[in-house]
Amino acid sequence: MNPFTANPQESVAAWGEEKVIAAIRRWLGPASPRAPFGIGDDCAVLAPSRGRQLITVDPVIFGQHFDDTIAPKSVAEKLLKRNLSDLAAMGGRPVAAVLALALDPRTKQLWLEKFYRGLATCARRHRVAIVGGDIAQATGGLVASLTLLGETTGPRVVTRTGPRVVTRTGARTGDRIFVTGVLGGSLRSGHHFRFTPRLAEGRWLARQRDVRAMMDVSDGLAKDLRALTPRGCVPALVAAALPLRAGCDVRAAVTDGEDYELVFALARSADSETFQRRWRRAFPRTRLSCIGHFVAERNPPADALKLSEYHGYEHLR
Amino acid sequence: MNPFTANPQESVAAWGEEKVIAAIRRWLGPASPRAPFGIGDDCAVLAPSRGRQLITVDPVIFGQHFDDTIAPKSVAEKLLKRNLSDLAAMGGRPVAAVLALALDPRTKQLWLEKFYRGLATCARRHRVAIVGGDIAQATGGLVASLTLLGETTGPRVVTRTGPRVVTRTGARTGDRIFVTGVLGGSLRSGHHFRFTPRLAEGRWLARQRDVRAMMDVSDGLAKDLRALTPRGCVPALVAAALPLRAGCDVRAAVTDGEDYELVFALARSADSETFQRRWRRAFPRTRLSCIGHFVAERNPPADALKLSEYHGYEHLR
Repeated sequence: MNPFTANPQESVAAWGEEKVIAAIRRWLGPASPRAPFGIGDDCAVLAPSRGRQLITVDPVIFGQHFDDTIAPKSVAEKLLKRNLSDLAAMGGRPVAAVLALALDPRTKQLWLEKFYRGLATCARRHRVAIVGGDIAQATGGLVASLTLLGETTGPRVVTRTGPRVVTRTGARTGDRIFVTGVLGGSLRSGHHFRFTPRLAEGRWLARQRDVRAMMDVSDGLAKDLRALTPRGCVPALVAAALPLRAGCDVRAAVTDGEDYELVFALARSADSETFQRRWRRAFPRTRLSCIGHFVAERNPPADALKLSEYHGYEHLR
Repeated sequence: MNPFTANPQESVAAWGEEKVIAAIRRWLGPASPRAPFGIGDDCAVLAPSRGRQLITVDPVIFGQHFDDTIAPKSVAEKLLKRNLSDLAAMGGRPVAAVLALALDPRTKQLWLEKFYRGLATCARRHRVAIVGGDIAQATGGLVASLTLLGETTGPRVVTRTGPRVVTRTGARTGDRIFVTGVLGGSLRSGHHFRFTPRLAEGRWLARQRDVRAMMDVSDGLAKDLRALTPRGCVPALVAAALPLRAGCDVRAAVTDGEDYELVFALARSADSETFQRRWRRAFPRTRLSCIGHFVAERNPPADALKLSEYHGYEHLR
């Protein structure tokens, strides 16, 4: 649906701010608690956090992340789910979100309604409270930025300050590299709108001591893996082990991006077979692939995939 | 400064994403902790909250909140301070912020540098850690949305779940209406860039049991006061008591907006003189004015200011 209308009567400008905000509250329904715990005061009030807190922000922008061929419901779902995927990558549990909307006054009331109703459904499914936001005017555009607040979960592996957070740092030479799901062709296949963020998988992985580092794959494995690679190492990937989406080749799998899968390092000392057996018991429907391991950069195996020949998605180019 | 350049060499596109993010970390310096507590992982990790949490989001948008006559440093300060003002209005203490930037690839490197350096200075002054963000492409525009996370402070008035939060709800018939500072002419005088958010005042007010409801004045008193007014009441304001900025009349004071002052209701039963004396001791340099009180709407005094004849700032019109 095109977010904008030439008919002033169908636009948000015909309503004005107060009526738009009242409508947003109605569309969000039970996904948004009452003020001051939700929309309607200077800030939203949240209960004290139970563990350490996690915070992330990601936008969707008209002309960049979606266009007028996309259903507004899918735009909203993608917005929330790409933030949930970041939270999954650290083993977190979602708590609350706020949404800043900058939009042209010609934005359709109907587009906005379907966007917020889609957001509400997706938020309730993942138990995220939409606690606040802002709506402002931006001529000619539509930018929606969602900030997601989450918590660490546990209780199995506990640090001094609460349950463990798995970061991008911590992998070592010899650690095996695993990835969930399949890679490549996300845009072509519609996966970037339809994916389910790997929240349950992320929480499970965060409880395994042998999982030393983790991140989500959003800009393509070739680019993203660099952040997971320990200093002085390179990832030695086995091309044949890459889980390809139907119709994708190796290049698509490592460069397309928007996979929203988890990639992580399993300690060299861990029993990989046992680990994979336990995974299959926990997530019988989520594929897990060991795609290689980290090796010293002066010593790469001759048959490893040459990742430097591939480039992931570069923003601002 | 104009945020955009026709010279590709001066633009952020000449750098590309990775170089821009590296520069942002450098510009933020000690205002941004190291990953995973700051920029550089899938989420930022924060310590467990000490009290209840407060969250708010507000943007600045090119063409809407600033133009090319404004120094980028002032844009950044305004962005952070308008969020701090929302936090002040509930008596909170700032903790951390994340920033989502949607910008045209023609944005000047120099504009961005001055923006982030200004943000860093302002963030350190107010002890806010800039813990994360996102930078994305938006053709033809510049939208910066900042989400601010804070905590309730105390310890004097404590509820079951932590120190008290003062909301917009709670005023009753007969309660006096107070406002800090002076009102009107914010845009003309440059106050909307130069103001200091009333954080210390907000925290002090939240500790006074007799302060029953509070908010900040951002869209103009005439509009904002409606949110503070108890059901069945109207605010009876004394025109002569309104603290006017030099050169402003009553209309400017109640409709101009962007005052970023605190307006609150003091319980009818409170000793107003004692309260004001204590205020002057705590904040000798911040003016405090009693501008009226809430009365039953069927019974407004004849000499009260007719607020319904004034309109505050209406967004999306």
